[in-house]
Amino acid sequence: MKYRQFGNTYMIRIDLGEEIVESLKKLCENEHIFLGRVEAIGATDYAVIGVYDPAKKEYYPETVSEFMEIASPNGSITAMDGKPYIHLHAALADRRHGIHGGHVLEMRVGATCEMFVTVLDGEVNRQKDEGLGINLWTF
Amino acid sequence: MKYRQFGNTYMIRIDLGEEIVESLKKLCENEHIFLGRVEAIGATDYAVIGVYDPAKKEYYPETVSEFMEIASPNGSITAMDGKPYIHLHAALADRRHGIHGGHVLEMRVGATCEMFVTVLDGEVNRQKDEGLGINLWTF
Amino acid sequence: MKYRQFGNTYMIRIDLGEEIVESLKKLCENEHIFLGRVEAIGATDYAVIGVYDPAKKEYYPETVSEFMEIASPNGSITAMDGKPYIHLHAALADRRHGIHGGHVLEMRVGATCEMFVTVLDGEVNRQKDEGLGINLWTF
Repeated sequence: MKYRQFGNTYMIRIDLGEEIVESLKKLCENEHIFLGRVEAIGATDYAVIGVYDPAKKEYYPETVSEFMEIASPNGSITAMDGKPYIHLHAALADRRHGIHGGHVLEMRVGATCEMFVTVLDGEVNRQKDEGLGINLWTF
Repeated sequence: MKYRQFGNTYMIRIDLGEEIVESLKKLCENEHIFLGRVEAIGATDYAVIGVYDPAKKEYYPETVSEFMEIASPNGSITAMDGKPYIHLHAALADRRHGIHGGHVLEMRVGATCEMFVTVLDGEVNRQKDEGLGINLWTF
Repeated sequence: MKYRQFGNTYMIRIDLGEEIVESLKKLCENEHIFLGRVEAIGATDYAVIGVYDPAKKEYYPETVSEFMEIASPNGSITAMDGKPYIHLHAALADRRHGIHGGHVLEMRVGATCEMFVTVLDGEVNRQKDEGLGINLWTF
């Protein structure tokens, strides 16, 4: 991972073999980013994406181990328990032009990932909602 | 729906059972937002999405009544007839990791929806293009 | 194509029959934009999208010649060899609500395309990585 800052925006190049969520966490820790918006495109060769089951309160995961274009991982950086908290969703296109999508549990870069993080000045924390089983933005 | 403003950006949490387009309209009316960009991720359990038919000048709607991750609703806030006008497209991932997508006609939150609205300073109005049957940005 | 500038953001309406990547290049040349982020929604009736093959170092292209909603073309403007360099990925929804996605090689507007370009103050160049066969951001 390499990155540069332009005003309130970081441009991040995540490299072959690096995991996207972990790389983004590292950026946030290095740069003390606790609030922001994330957009990216790129390619992955290994991803675990999930669709939530509100009854079981867990994600149905799908693991895809082939080269795919990342059409859109979008999401946010907020804070939970004093640490940066990453929440990304993605749509992925495989070689047969099939599309996979959902909540990003894990995503490894297959060639390059070009990411923009727009930092916001402020703080939003997450708190677990016991009814839903997920961590909500608290205002 | 709850929200907070950070500089030119609103972060909006839209809650279980609330409709996304209506919630966004309400935000724009409350906060007098007439121009901006919208990004969000979240989950829905009921959505009507359409693909336009330029010959018939209407949308082919698809109604999906199951729990899905919202991979990307993106769009804009502009103005038409003096009111905020919302235009969103989305890609949705269902439990079988199938993907649905198109123009958002209706979308109800299935767990939470985390939205960013970046407000722009200015005004862009829409006007109906009779040839296309849709409301275009006018400059 | 018509556009207007609001602060660091351009709103661009790309019109029926115009090609999206070429239009965006023209905007960048007219306005001397060499660094920025791109988001858009719209419709296309002809698109060539690709999924990269790292072994062959070329894209598997898919050509789709039907009316589709553009759920998300996202990407970046950087510079290469002194010229603006456009990199876009997209997810497209067809009338059967099938989804196509990948790297945008060509995309013609089918009704309208509503694009936001957020300009960043700085410069990022691309350089070919011979191992990967693609042009990477250099920092």
